[in-house]
Amino acid sequence: MLQRTARTLARPCTPRPRRARVASRRLALLTTAEKDAALHAAADAVLAASDVVLAANSADVDAARESGTEDSILDRLRLTQARVEGIASGLRQVAGLPDPVGEVVRGSTLPNGLEIRQLRVPLGVVGMVYEARPNVTVDAFGLALKSGNAALLRGSSSAARSNAALVEALRGALGAQGLPADAVQLLPSEDRSSVTHLIQARGLVDVVVPRGGAGLIAAVVRDATVPTIETGVGNCHVYVHAAADLEMAEKIVVNAKTRRPSVCNTVETVLVDKAIADTAVPQLLSVLQAHSVVVHGDLPGLVPATEADWSEEYLTLDVALAVVDDLDAAVEHIDRYGTGHTEAIVTSDLAAAREFTARVDAAAVMVNASTAFTDGEQFGFGAEIGISTQKLHARGPMGLPELTSTKWVVWGDGHTRPA
Amino acid sequence: MLQRTARTLARPCTPRPRRARVASRRLALLTTAEKDAALHAAADAVLAASDVVLAANSADVDAARESGTEDSILDRLRLTQARVEGIASGLRQVAGLPDPVGEVVRGSTLPNGLEIRQLRVPLGVVGMVYEARPNVTVDAFGLALKSGNAALLRGSSSAARSNAALVEALRGALGAQGLPADAVQLLPSEDRSSVTHLIQARGLVDVVVPRGGAGLIAAVVRDATVPTIETGVGNCHVYVHAAADLEMAEKIVVNAKTRRPSVCNTVETVLVDKAIADTAVPQLLSVLQAHSVVVHGDLPGLVPATEADWSEEYLTLDVALAVVDDLDAAVEHIDRYGTGHTEAIVTSDLAAAREFTARVDAAAVMVNASTAFTDGEQFGFGAEIGISTQKLHARGPMGLPELTSTKWVVWGDGHTRPA
Repeated sequence: MLQRTARTLARPCTPRPRRARVASRRLALLTTAEKDAALHAAADAVLAASDVVLAANSADVDAARESGTEDSILDRLRLTQARVEGIASGLRQVAGLPDPVGEVVRGSTLPNGLEIRQLRVPLGVVGMVYEARPNVTVDAFGLALKSGNAALLRGSSSAARSNAALVEALRGALGAQGLPADAVQLLPSEDRSSVTHLIQARGLVDVVVPRGGAGLIAAVVRDATVPTIETGVGNCHVYVHAAADLEMAEKIVVNAKTRRPSVCNTVETVLVDKAIADTAVPQLLSVLQAHSVVVHGDLPGLVPATEADWSEEYLTLDVALAVVDDLDAAVEHIDRYGTGHTEAIVTSDLAAAREFTARVDAAAVMVNASTAFTDGEQFGFGAEIGISTQKLHARGPMGLPELTSTKWVVWGDGHTRPA
Repeated sequence: MLQRTARTLARPCTPRPRRARVASRRLALLTTAEKDAALHAAADAVLAASDVVLAANSADVDAARESGTEDSILDRLRLTQARVEGIASGLRQVAGLPDPVGEVVRGSTLPNGLEIRQLRVPLGVVGMVYEARPNVTVDAFGLALKSGNAALLRGSSSAARSNAALVEALRGALGAQGLPADAVQLLPSEDRSSVTHLIQARGLVDVVVPRGGAGLIAAVVRDATVPTIETGVGNCHVYVHAAADLEMAEKIVVNAKTRRPSVCNTVETVLVDKAIADTAVPQLLSVLQAHSVVVHGDLPGLVPATEADWSEEYLTLDVALAVVDDLDAAVEHIDRYGTGHTEAIVTSDLAAAREFTARVDAAAVMVNASTAFTDGEQFGFGAEIGISTQKLHARGPMGLPELTSTKWVVWGDGHTRPA
């Protein structure tokens, strides 16, 4: 039997990252069945706490409204009984996903007889810094727990009451299952100091994932001494190639822009090949305008574009449009302005499709498909913790395996290494 | 045909990281055959430049000797004709390794017919900060080139002439092959400013790998804004369990300490289980002393230990030894003082072996084997860029795949995502 009790029990006065670390040692040794039972218990606890959670959320929403928060953000902040039920069923869904911990990634028997295996193990303590949506609190907890990690959550102050009510329910469920409540801890959100402590808790926190706007992410990455994973900034392009099916291009551009303009995989710039610009540009403008999209650019009749139109995300029903000389120029434009999230080409030319996918440097490159498909659920991961736009460790939608590290386990029978 | 010419040619006055980035775009598109031909050409060029390299090295060694550098470091710095030949054959060996770029890591056809594949792609620009050994200059170039990356190398000032001669040979070979010479660039080593520029060239440099002592690594990690991979600090333990075969334990401890005391996988602390201490401790002391190892600890007759004996590497023929109550106490000691490199248990008890490997959090955990086996060549990788002691991206010996990222390539035929 494995020993499952940590010797050193952390007390409440111990700083949160240290308590998370102690909890993480136990989480790493849990069986899949134990973790899944805890996830179902947590789902039950969230449902049982619905009234408390909804009352807390109501106070958050009222305070945000009074301080002049815009409706779209209020909508993300607001919980309803149906949304609480959705949050709980998200936990049950994570319980149904395969457990990444213990998976043998590689392994072999060396010529000297040593047996080596590289196993997936939890990262340890995962920090999240995120914006208003309270569902992220529970989602992040669920994904962290399933992958054997303790979670340190720093949500937005506008959701403080909602998050506190949710985390109290989760901690109660863990305690009732005999698991350490410190597997999930909410950090204070009154000021930025809790973010600073989190991202500088080197040796205690194994990774911090910022989820939010470009400003939040840049600040976290700049000041962090713990490893971070950048997520979510998507200045995505659709390049309508000379050999594009124009009807297909229209459908893809409209879908990529209008399906949910505020998310990171929405298209922000359309690049049209010069060879077909005379017909393609008017058609695209017409269909975009029919969908209430405001088009920015240097062409006559468009809202005049500045540098920011090319380099920043709109996240609204706006899009920039430029004519480019050829595929080379399209790749160069993307190289200059893209954020490495998702880039797409529309073409019926195989060589152009191969060249575009080979040369464009991004987490996802689409051929004849909407940028909206870059998403953990769409890719079949069941859930996602965010979309990484960096190259180290994880790139693109991050599911459970991306919340793990590895460990080499080596078995011998007295092996020593010759000089 | 893929377009292989970068539009924007970088000029020599452009800063090195930007020139590396331009070069990396071409390297990413090279075929395996092109890269292997370049590696063989580079090996030929290093051999052809032997006289120049040896003369430069001689000047480095003389200057280092005059400034009072100790013999062991002079030995690492010194090149001979045989060592130059070894460096060249190292490049040919890398040419013989499998190319990681283009490997399909995962892939599926989604229910909607979208075909998704996750491919290995180069990281882009890889920075290395390292100490005296000039062979690292060529090894790092070779591994970076084979994995499609440009290399920015910042070696030690004591090896400046040797490194300059080697890099000139490598750049000449690349140019003669029609490849960008900026695929390898040596950074000035007179002062620390080139390190600072390298580790803060965010957006141009994709990863920096520091290789050297704990001080160097800590400074790089603290000041970097580009992602880093920590390597090489190994405060490794061997735990001689109550059910250990004592003869096996002696052989493993002696091998792990004396084979090459200055490398990171050497054992620095031996933990002996209390249950067998009365016989095991005298036997271990006797065999260690017979191998000229100085033993530090709190037991009578040992060199008295301070906190540093437990927390720091000796990298010499010294070792610390402590008696621990049981497996729990051994794991706690390792948890407190280990650096997450390699930890070993000697035992014939299966449950103890399983518990130790499950609970100890390190890049490699050995059962009945010397810590000296944590090494890329030993693990069958053919070559290694370093041994990562961090959890993100790579952990343990890093070979060619660890110098890559991934990209999702998605093929559709007009797919749009439903609301």
